[in-house]
Amino acid sequence: MGLMETTNKPQDQLARWLTEDMSAVNGLIRDRMASEHAPRIPEVTAHLVEAGGKRLRPMMTLAAARLCGYGGPYHVHLAATVEFIHTATLLHDDVVDESRQRRGRPTANLLWDNKSSVLVGDYLFARAFQLMTECGNLRVLSILSNASAVIAEGEVLQLTAAQDLGTDEDIYLKVVRGKTAALFSAATQVGGVIAGAPEDQVDALFAYGDALGIAFQIVDDLLDYGGTSAVIGKNVGDDFRERKLTLPVIKAIATADADERTFWTRVIEKGDQREGDLEQALKLLRAHGALDAARAEAMDWAAKAKAALAPLPAHELRDMLRDLADYVVERVA
Amino acid sequence: MGLMETTNKPQDQLARWLTEDMSAVNGLIRDRMASEHAPRIPEVTAHLVEAGGKRLRPMMTLAAARLCGYGGPYHVHLAATVEFIHTATLLHDDVVDESRQRRGRPTANLLWDNKSSVLVGDYLFARAFQLMTECGNLRVLSILSNASAVIAEGEVLQLTAAQDLGTDEDIYLKVVRGKTAALFSAATQVGGVIAGAPEDQVDALFAYGDALGIAFQIVDDLLDYGGTSAVIGKNVGDDFRERKLTLPVIKAIATADADERTFWTRVIEKGDQREGDLEQALKLLRAHGALDAARAEAMDWAAKAKAALAPLPAHELRDMLRDLADYVVERVA
Repeated sequence: MGLMETTNKPQDQLARWLTEDMSAVNGLIRDRMASEHAPRIPEVTAHLVEAGGKRLRPMMTLAAARLCGYGGPYHVHLAATVEFIHTATLLHDDVVDESRQRRGRPTANLLWDNKSSVLVGDYLFARAFQLMTECGNLRVLSILSNASAVIAEGEVLQLTAAQDLGTDEDIYLKVVRGKTAALFSAATQVGGVIAGAPEDQVDALFAYGDALGIAFQIVDDLLDYGGTSAVIGKNVGDDFRERKLTLPVIKAIATADADERTFWTRVIEKGDQREGDLEQALKLLRAHGALDAARAEAMDWAAKAKAALAPLPAHELRDMLRDLADYVVERVA
Repeated sequence: MGLMETTNKPQDQLARWLTEDMSAVNGLIRDRMASEHAPRIPEVTAHLVEAGGKRLRPMMTLAAARLCGYGGPYHVHLAATVEFIHTATLLHDDVVDESRQRRGRPTANLLWDNKSSVLVGDYLFARAFQLMTECGNLRVLSILSNASAVIAEGEVLQLTAAQDLGTDEDIYLKVVRGKTAALFSAATQVGGVIAGAPEDQVDALFAYGDALGIAFQIVDDLLDYGGTSAVIGKNVGDDFRERKLTLPVIKAIATADADERTFWTRVIEKGDQREGDLEQALKLLRAHGALDAARAEAMDWAAKAKAALAPLPAHELRDMLRDLADYVVERVA
């Protein structure tokens, strides 16, 4: 699971601090992903849930609750809820993106079929709502159901904005808030709410999760163009081949001349991609400083995330969340 | 919408009695299916929501609440919730079944794509949970999130049980409870819960919805083999071509001799269907009395639905729910 590694990465520090809580979360996840009647369900979920994700989101819920002094049992339910929502969206995303690999393993839609991925995703959504309902806290229910709507809305927006050169940074931010930041911010916020933290701390936790999620996604999009280094690594160019309008491309298009616009229209809007186009795209991204500009925005969001933590109590976990914000952007530093 | 027709069908009587409530439900549905950011969402939902479904499920929630004397505003939220869950499952079902038509119109997955159907379905699920959370009643949340899990579980079970001659009536009932009866029973039950009805009435409403849903689905499965008449109508045989193990077929297989078993294995398990096979299947269904036996079970469930209503207050709406149970099986009477 990678959780017990002895590195000093912030997520490993969090995992060590939260060992007992995470063990309860993992137990609850195993328990609730079971289905008495339909064995296909645990097969599919086990494939994904046990594939060794970092469990970053549930850890953020646990950390937020603990750092606000929570001593009850329900942060475990909420952490499992967040992981179930995340897993459900992964299952549906892989159907939508027609993905064949995730975390280095074949996707569920490839191993079973799209049908199983759609229906098991629905099952996990329902299980998530059952779990959060058990907490008996209506505000938590409202936050997580709102986040689920924002996630789905962001995914639909991404679908319709794809391959449209008119997509601007404003739309990009909405998509990113939906597909990534909404679950991060809900994860940290509900931790504070269940702990009964004062309103300024609940707001701080939301702002932290929101900024961290945005930084996280911008970095992800940057790495898809090899980060800011000049070397093209492996797996570079997936977004380019899928004609996704991510921040670096949006920035390069915003300042493109007529010839360059023709290039972007051909490769992104029309999807007519030829040998050497990825290299040409990278050349344009660098020439327009688009990679550096996107990197600066990621650093900016990471700084916002760290600043947001100020109202929270001084605590080892707060330090780890701060370090996590640095770590997220370190991959492109 | 068919709601204001002047027939004496029980659902039209219900629609007339509940005109004001249903108008509030339709307003709320229109309001909440909108999305500020992603116009694709209302396009897809409008196509389905406005396609003229009977709105049977939301009417059952309204009727249950009113007949238990409810005077508050939240039965409208719950009715809209139930319709959103229903619509979301239709969107996902059409992807899973690769359907091309629903209610005589092209399906959303055909008009747009599977991606939109998956994601807009997710959006409607999230909207449903937002709506029910607004009611502030934790028991209602528990009932509807449990129902959502049972629905998804039933769909997965149907997927894995499909084309498996080992599927028995017990599995069939679990599938039917999931795909159909769970939402009917939750729809009526939450109407009673929100009205603060006594426990025996809440139980009665659950039992009514459960039995009505099962009767409804058996009739649907029967009609797919032309009901109990000897005439093959149009649209007969869809389930046969899709190799679905529905009640009539399960009954015929249970009493099949060796030759007949070979036939069922070829056409259902192996999917090797030839000219004249549907006629042969119908001949076997009749020879084994499978259609009549399935019909008897549907009548039985309808009778159970009517009997379940006994603990509820004498009320025009109770009479209409009773008539609805008769009407559901009238199509095969």
